[in-house]
Amino acid sequence: MLAGQNLYTACTIGNDTIMPRERTPRSPISSIDVARLAGVSQSAVSRSFSPGGSVSPAMREKVLAAAAVLGYRPNLIPRIMLSGRSRMIGVVVGGLDNPFYAAVLDHFAVVLRAVGLQVLLVQVPDALALDGALDQLAGYRVDAVVTALAVGTRQAATALSDLRIPIVCFNSRLTAPWISTVRSDNRAAGQAAAHLLADRGARRTAWLAGPRDSAATRARARGFLDGLAARALPAPVVIVGQDTYHDGYAAVRDLLRGHRPPEAFFCSNDMMACGAIDALRAHGLTVPGDVRVVGYDNIPQAAWHGYDLTSFDQQVDRMAEAALDLLTSALADPATAAKGRTRTVPARLVERGSTAPQAR
Amino acid sequence: MLAGQNLYTACTIGNDTIMPRERTPRSPISSIDVARLAGVSQSAVSRSFSPGGSVSPAMREKVLAAAAVLGYRPNLIPRIMLSGRSRMIGVVVGGLDNPFYAAVLDHFAVVLRAVGLQVLLVQVPDALALDGALDQLAGYRVDAVVTALAVGTRQAATALSDLRIPIVCFNSRLTAPWISTVRSDNRAAGQAAAHLLADRGARRTAWLAGPRDSAATRARARGFLDGLAARALPAPVVIVGQDTYHDGYAAVRDLLRGHRPPEAFFCSNDMMACGAIDALRAHGLTVPGDVRVVGYDNIPQAAWHGYDLTSFDQQVDRMAEAALDLLTSALADPATAAKGRTRTVPARLVERGSTAPQAR
Repeated sequence: MLAGQNLYTACTIGNDTIMPRERTPRSPISSIDVARLAGVSQSAVSRSFSPGGSVSPAMREKVLAAAAVLGYRPNLIPRIMLSGRSRMIGVVVGGLDNPFYAAVLDHFAVVLRAVGLQVLLVQVPDALALDGALDQLAGYRVDAVVTALAVGTRQAATALSDLRIPIVCFNSRLTAPWISTVRSDNRAAGQAAAHLLADRGARRTAWLAGPRDSAATRARARGFLDGLAARALPAPVVIVGQDTYHDGYAAVRDLLRGHRPPEAFFCSNDMMACGAIDALRAHGLTVPGDVRVVGYDNIPQAAWHGYDLTSFDQQVDRMAEAALDLLTSALADPATAAKGRTRTVPARLVERGSTAPQAR
Repeated sequence: MLAGQNLYTACTIGNDTIMPRERTPRSPISSIDVARLAGVSQSAVSRSFSPGGSVSPAMREKVLAAAAVLGYRPNLIPRIMLSGRSRMIGVVVGGLDNPFYAAVLDHFAVVLRAVGLQVLLVQVPDALALDGALDQLAGYRVDAVVTALAVGTRQAATALSDLRIPIVCFNSRLTAPWISTVRSDNRAAGQAAAHLLADRGARRTAWLAGPRDSAATRARARGFLDGLAARALPAPVVIVGQDTYHDGYAAVRDLLRGHRPPEAFFCSNDMMACGAIDALRAHGLTVPGDVRVVGYDNIPQAAWHGYDLTSFDQQVDRMAEAALDLLTSALADPATAAKGRTRTVPARLVERGSTAPQAR
């Protein structure tokens, strides 16, 4: 801890304005500039920067030294044109206000960059807007597309398939020629949620569903119903939201008006589960004392002390690796790309305070 | 609300598997394919897809019809090569686990796409990793770079400036040839925080600072100290975190051990403010009853009922528009690009329950 007055010193650490060496306003350094400085031909510069290019070690050294002085970076565009491979992957996401999708994008950017692939980001409000975005992607000749956006309509699926490049979907049930899917084992997780809540003594449960057109929420529901049936428990009360915190809050608040509270909630995602917990507390109920809550996604907020939410971790790092594996084999072999495949990654149960086995 | 059993029906709505028409595994539709189907030359196809291309209306109609049948999208790569303009903007972000940065990226993707520019995403763990990423950006001949990552070192600034394309930084104090900055009016917001807390009767305050190398956190601190001084209040206790929820929680927990709690906290961002609130509650204190809390960023969690946090909204939409404006004028006129400029956007105070003027 510092005394307040010392802070003025800390505030002026470093230069507010950094002035690198002045430049005249013109375009980036070209291979001609490098050739001139190195005293070699432009073709020698080009060969020095091509993997396996025919150039003597001495010549390459001279070129690289000149390039370093000038800050030259080789232009990849001619190579893209000749090879037909841009080494760019189109990554389609919906709103990044859901921390789960932000995490998916984060992991993707890391695994793709590690193998020298770039992310051309496509942010669209919903699957209906995908068509216009695909025109752009196709124009840039992306090598493949990864979509974290739920693609539920035949029209969007056809548009993706028509690109005739490998497509990998996240948490979709879509498979088709050129389209593969990586998904969380939503159904098994739903069953596990039912068994956990049954183990905690809950009999009257509620299922807080996500959007009806999402294959993921449907599979979670199916698993939950299966698990409750296996434990001879009654079917849950069902309420529905659109996956946001405020939907979860409103759905639970409305349910509690004039109804006896369920003993436990399974929520289709963590955002809605956080909303559910706040609505339960606003109603004077405690979590887990009166009501137990389980979410899905294991977003950072699930670990915040105010929620301490039991959740299913989709293991996004493993899903991203699986997607990369599908992409790289599809890029290496077009015959593979033409057959859609599915990879299922198990969800890991992370137990926290919201389902603690405390005395009631 | 639906009865549980009806859910099985809802679960099977829609097809799990969509099978678009089969395709042979080969590369995307080319202009040659379109020319063949339309019975015209390849050059006629090319001219039909070039803005202002010399082609008769009848010919263009024939070409567009054939293109629609085949799902053809014109290749933009040759145009990039000829014009030297990729219409791609490199967008550099750090970890997207901070909802503020996710929102910045979200807004950027929207405003850039609205003017036909694409986002080439560069996710780097910190400014030190920027150098390697810049090589890739330069290779793709991005037209400009926007960085939401704090660029605090001379080395990173020089590397950016050396690209000799327009650069726009977010919340940096950096200006240099080729580098412009859009920033929140951090200092004025810090002053406003001091006045708000003074109005609520707080005398003993604490400042929860972010990373020392961040110009934004330093400017917020300076404003807060100015504001407290203007109200003849003592300097705040200063504690420091690295901008995460868990940093905020730990810093406040540690402060409360053996110290009399301050009457109010101003936190450098909302993530730390949420951690601060949970630490205060774990210590048996109420917000705003015992302690009042102000954050910065107005992330979605600030509006969650569990936090109900007063915060400063940076108005990311306005910052993104300002950045786009700097970029487009720099792209239109290299002489402008060579001079760094600064735009300051006022932060909007959003008052919520954490600073409510209730009886103490």
